[in-house]
Amino acid sequence: MNNLFADLPTTLPEKLVEVLAESEHVRIERILSIGHASPEGLWYDQDKTEWVVVLKGEAKLFLEGDDGPIHMRPGDYINIPAHRKRRVEWTTPDEPTVWLAVFYCDN
Amino acid sequence: MNNLFADLPTTLPEKLVEVLAESEHVRIERILSIGHASPEGLWYDQDKTEWVVVLKGEAKLFLEGDDGPIHMRPGDYINIPAHRKRRVEWTTPDEPTVWLAVFYCDN
Repeated sequence: MNNLFADLPTTLPEKLVEVLAESEHVRIERILSIGHASPEGLWYDQDKTEWVVVLKGEAKLFLEGDDGPIHMRPGDYINIPAHRKRRVEWTTPDEPTVWLAVFYCDN
Repeated sequence: MNNLFADLPTTLPEKLVEVLAESEHVRIERILSIGHASPEGLWYDQDKTEWVVVLKGEAKLFLEGDDGPIHMRPGDYINIPAHRKRRVEWTTPDEPTVWLAVFYCDN
C-alpha cells in the first residue's frame, strides 16, 4: 500500500509525474506541481481522454475554447475529451498541488 | 466541474456508488460508505483490475490470502488484481468514507 500524500517535496525543479498503474487502455498518474505552469503559449494535446482531480493545493486549468481558466481546489474533478487542448495556467506556490489523472481510451 | 467531497450525506442506508466516467475498458467510481461493511462472509470477485484510494474517512479492506485487513486512511491506495477476492471489513461510522475506484482491463 502507498499513499498519495506521502513524501511530498517542498521544492521541485519541474512538475513530477509518477505512473501508479498502467495497462494498454489506461494510465493512472500522480502529478505534483509547486507553482509550476505550462510553458507560455504551450497547449497540450492528448490522444486519450483524461479524467483529472486536484486532491491538494490549487490550480488553474485552461481548456481551449473557454473564456478563461477554471480554478480547481481539492476534490474538484473534470473529464477532458481526447484532443481537447489544455494548459495549466497556474498552481499555488504555497504548497504542493497533488493531481490524480486517469488517461483512458474512450471507446 | 464537480467535487468529490460535495454534498456528502450524513446517513446512508447502504453504500452509494456513483459512476463518474466510463468507457469500454475503464470505469471510474466514487463510493461512499458510512460505517458500512461487506455482508458477513461475502467476498467480492471482480473481473477487472481495481485501483482504489481512500480520500476521506477510514476503512479496513481484507484481501483473500492476507493474514488480516489493511487499514486505509486518506491517500492510501492499492491495486487489486482481477479475481483477487476482497471484502470491506469496516468503515468508520464517524464520517463518510470517500473511495475513488478505477476498474480497468489489465491487458
